Amino acid sequence: MALALPQAELSAENRAYFDKCLEKLGFVPNVLLSYAHDDAKLTAFGAFYNDLMLAPSGLSKLEREMIAVAVSSVNRCYYCLTAHGAAVRQLSGDAVLGELMVMNYRAAALSARHRAMLDFAVKLTETPHLIEEEDRAALRAAGFGERDIWDVSAVASFFNMSNRMASAVDMRPNAAYHGQVR
Amino acid sequence: MALALPQAELSAENRAYFDKCLEKLGFVPNVLLSYAHDDAKLTAFGAFYNDLMLAPSGLSKLEREMIAVAVSSVNRCYYCLTAHGAAVRQLSGDAVLGELMVMNYRAAALSARHRAMLDFAVKLTETPHLIEEEDRAALRAAGFGERDIWDVSAVASFFNMSNRMASAVDMRPNAAYHGQVR
Amino acid sequence: MALALPQAELSAENRAYFDKCLEKLGFVPNVLLSYAHDDAKLTAFGAFYNDLMLAPSGLSKLEREMIAVAVSSVNRCYYCLTAHGAAVRQLSGDAVLGELMVMNYRAAALSARHRAMLDFAVKLTETPHLIEEEDRAALRAAGFGERDIWDVSAVASFFNMSNRMASAVDMRPNAAYHGQVR
Amino acid sequence: MALALPQAELSAENRAYFDKCLEKLGFVPNVLLSYAHDDAKLTAFGAFYNDLMLAPSGLSKLEREMIAVAVSSVNRCYYCLTAHGAAVRQLSGDAVLGELMVMNYRAAALSARHRAMLDFAVKLTETPHLIEEEDRAALRAAGFGERDIWDVSAVASFFNMSNRMASAVDMRPNAAYHGQVR
Amino acid sequence: MALALPQAELSAENRAYFDKCLEKLGFVPNVLLSYAHDDAKLTAFGAFYNDLMLAPSGLSKLEREMIAVAVSSVNRCYYCLTAHGAAVRQLSGDAVLGELMVMNYRAAALSARHRAMLDFAVKLTETPHLIEEEDRAALRAAGFGERDIWDVSAVASFFNMSNRMASAVDMRPNAAYHGQVR
Amino acid sequence: MALALPQAELSAENRAYFDKCLEKLGFVPNVLLSYAHDDAKLTAFGAFYNDLMLAPSGLSKLEREMIAVAVSSVNRCYYCLTAHGAAVRQLSGDAVLGELMVMNYRAAALSARHRAMLDFAVKLTETPHLIEEEDRAALRAAGFGERDIWDVSAVASFFNMSNRMASAVDMRPNAAYHGQVR
Repeated sequence: MALALPQAELSAENRAYFDKCLEKLGFVPNVLLSYAHDDAKLTAFGAFYNDLMLAPSGLSKLEREMIAVAVSSVNRCYYCLTAHGAAVRQLSGDAVLGELMVMNYRAAALSARHRAMLDFAVKLTETPHLIEEEDRAALRAAGFGERDIWDVSAVASFFNMSNRMASAVDMRPNAAYHGQVR
Repeated sequence: MALALPQAELSAENRAYFDKCLEKLGFVPNVLLSYAHDDAKLTAFGAFYNDLMLAPSGLSKLEREMIAVAVSSVNRCYYCLTAHGAAVRQLSGDAVLGELMVMNYRAAALSARHRAMLDFAVKLTETPHLIEEEDRAALRAAGFGERDIWDVSAVASFFNMSNRMASAVDMRPNAAYHGQVR
Repeated sequence: MALALPQAELSAENRAYFDKCLEKLGFVPNVLLSYAHDDAKLTAFGAFYNDLMLAPSGLSKLEREMIAVAVSSVNRCYYCLTAHGAAVRQLSGDAVLGELMVMNYRAAALSARHRAMLDFAVKLTETPHLIEEEDRAALRAAGFGERDIWDVSAVASFFNMSNRMASAVDMRPNAAYHGQVR
Repeated sequence: MALALPQAELSAENRAYFDKCLEKLGFVPNVLLSYAHDDAKLTAFGAFYNDLMLAPSGLSKLEREMIAVAVSSVNRCYYCLTAHGAAVRQLSGDAVLGELMVMNYRAAALSARHRAMLDFAVKLTETPHLIEEEDRAALRAAGFGERDIWDVSAVASFFNMSNRMASAVDMRPNAAYHGQVR
Repeated sequence: MALALPQAELSAENRAYFDKCLEKLGFVPNVLLSYAHDDAKLTAFGAFYNDLMLAPSGLSKLEREMIAVAVSSVNRCYYCLTAHGAAVRQLSGDAVLGELMVMNYRAAALSARHRAMLDFAVKLTETPHLIEEEDRAALRAAGFGERDIWDVSAVASFFNMSNRMASAVDMRPNAAYHGQVR
Repeated sequence: MALALPQAELSAENRAYFDKCLEKLGFVPNVLLSYAHDDAKLTAFGAFYNDLMLAPSGLSKLEREMIAVAVSSVNRCYYCLTAHGAAVRQLSGDAVLGELMVMNYRAAALSARHRAMLDFAVKLTETPHLIEEEDRAALRAAGFGERDIWDVSAVASFFNMSNRMASAVDMRPNAAYHGQVR
């Protein structure tokens, strides 16, 4: 961490959250440790993130992680490419798919649904001012409903925030991610 | 709103939040209405946003709004430029400052502190992968502490999310913003 | 004005031009004052500008101002966005339309004619080397005649000059524009 | 010419202008013929152009032509690169200098004055919104006075108009330029 | 040459190669002299280059040179634009075609075959990560076979190497090229 | 392989080359198979490549592979990122270094020498027309000699060719690379 922010006293809920991470993952993701300088910010971030990535949605968890990595590839975010690249590998069981999302999603043999989803997410990342009704129409044509479009947009938008936060404070991914599901 | 998402049954807390908006602003900001298709998402967004923009910080509320507008100018987000441009005009009492943030912050006669703050925010927006230690050092040289750097980064990063969300679902600003503090 | 150029002795015609501005607008636009360091340059600029923006044309005065602002938005010209943004508001009586031209014309609910006109003007601004016959064909398909295409091109091209001149010498808009037709 | 605009009845002054071109150059430059669909526009353009490129200035005619070509190279304007590339070759008597302005002015062995002049002109062309006081200061440091800075800016700005006009209507250079001073 | 690399002892084959250049061209192209600091590198480069540009192919030598210049125009390589611009003029006997390849190939009146060929080459140069099956399909639709697609790609790719090598070490074209076939 | 080019009859030398690959690597790299449609092209490519990456040089083999991956990251070449990313991991024994070259070399903790080397290679990749004497001076200041500058340039330039060739014909990396040295 490039910023020298001492960890705050955490609430019982956030301590329990970290304990659960340790139990399930064997470590607390460094992004959470980076927010732990302020208990309220950690709480708000955790709630927002968990709703986004884990709540019921027309998008599978793998699809949300694919968006995360394709967006992070545009923004060249080392933290997110590492952590969410590992997530794509784990959820898909496909090591090559994870690499393709990191390197160039266009080179992957994607379903029409997944191609439309990632094309929208990447256009929204690169040129948000050019997104128009025809872009939403392309998602609908690929079978996405109105709420699904919200969710594609929300995940893509979130990682445009998270990529920048990670770069701004030089977050470093936990070492454990690198070797997972290779 | 380009997406046809029916409003959800809102929790008492979110109904109270909307009532408070009506009382203080005379309207509920459309960004909140757009999240109201899902009570949990509205809650998470509101909590995250309010901590970011209103919680105690080394950055004044005006400074946070200036970052919001300068970032939204890069991303050409009609919603955020309108709503947060109005906020800059209101908090500063300076109609021209609001316009300058929308049009080209480099044309404003800014203090060294504000120039450094906006240069960082805009570089983080345009080329997050190029942010390095020397960019943080420039903020420190302009008097920002470690926690302030977090806050500059967090506001700039957030609007990179919010700009994209607004473009993705075609959010439209409340009409009231346009005439405020001209 | 960032350049320290003393005003020249003006010809009777240019003095009358300034008097007419004072009478009609209440002020002499700063762009004219900036050219007033050289009477011949002021004369040439005024003649060129007035033919372009006021002479009979298949484009209405409002359409010419809409092009001016959309082009100035690409170039982020504080002077022209302010002065011609006010002109759009005045000629249309629509405060929001002026803001949309400044912020992102794609977010405006434009007629097919106006969308084609601004798409051409903005492409000509951003990537003039990519303009080809099919771009002119798109204007024709939207109902523009040959002379209209010349006029769209001439206005868009002119503001690519004027935006740069304003940035080069740091022209500042007259304060009166900001509050007009809000 | 891609636009089918019939030539207008020309004023005596413009007929004399064309005759003078024929006498001195052996041809009427196609840019003038393209404006000849409207006598008033031809008059305004000719007056503006001749003041810019021929009136007394701290910049030599060759320097003005060098700016014209370096700017036209950024915009890849076939008409202007051909016509003004020939002008650089003729005024300098240096065929290679003309080619360097067309291809990449940075590869030329330029004086500090000429390098500063072209760096300013090209930055003004590519990113006018980034021009600030330090850019003008660089010109001053290279020996340019206030009026010279105006003239560098005016020539660079003009060709940003003229390049776009030529691309917009597909102007074609007179064949005679190609073989001059090779 | 900006790099001070002394010429190596050349093999008999490379001495013969240089002699043949002198006999046929009147000079040894400076690109070959620049590789002559290392006999093995000169050999490898010469073999690779001669196979690419001279071996039997579905592309004519002129077509290969047109690709070379259009690619070099994107990369603004002074050496390659000069040397291969001359080659286009010589092989086509068309001085204007050479200039058009240097300045903006889109302004040339090209056959559908040549337009497709150069569009592919330039897209491959500017955004190689966006090349997909539909780009190859466009070449096939213009009559190119599988091996032809390889050859278009190979020539375009090679000049992306050669342009960079020339810029990296500041290669300067032989003066003789400038006046050829004007 | 997206192109359907049948493998040619190979020379004894190229058959031996493939046998050596099989013996040392367990497979023939797909890039070589893709050139095998033409024995002369395979020979020329192999000779050029092997001199570049394996011949004696002031740059270590690892340094040449680091350049290969950093350049391929700019161009988002799936083939080269996979194959040369594995090479960086193998030659360095550092799995994370390989990932950093793929994702964003600026996030790696590099020596001043390696940072200067990669900054030059990436600038040469992104904006070759902006490389000037001061860029070479930065390499010299980091301890690179004239021949070393040639070699940095040659490797960076080569992968600008190879990345494009791989994208143009849709080369796919051998599966074995993915799991190496994780």
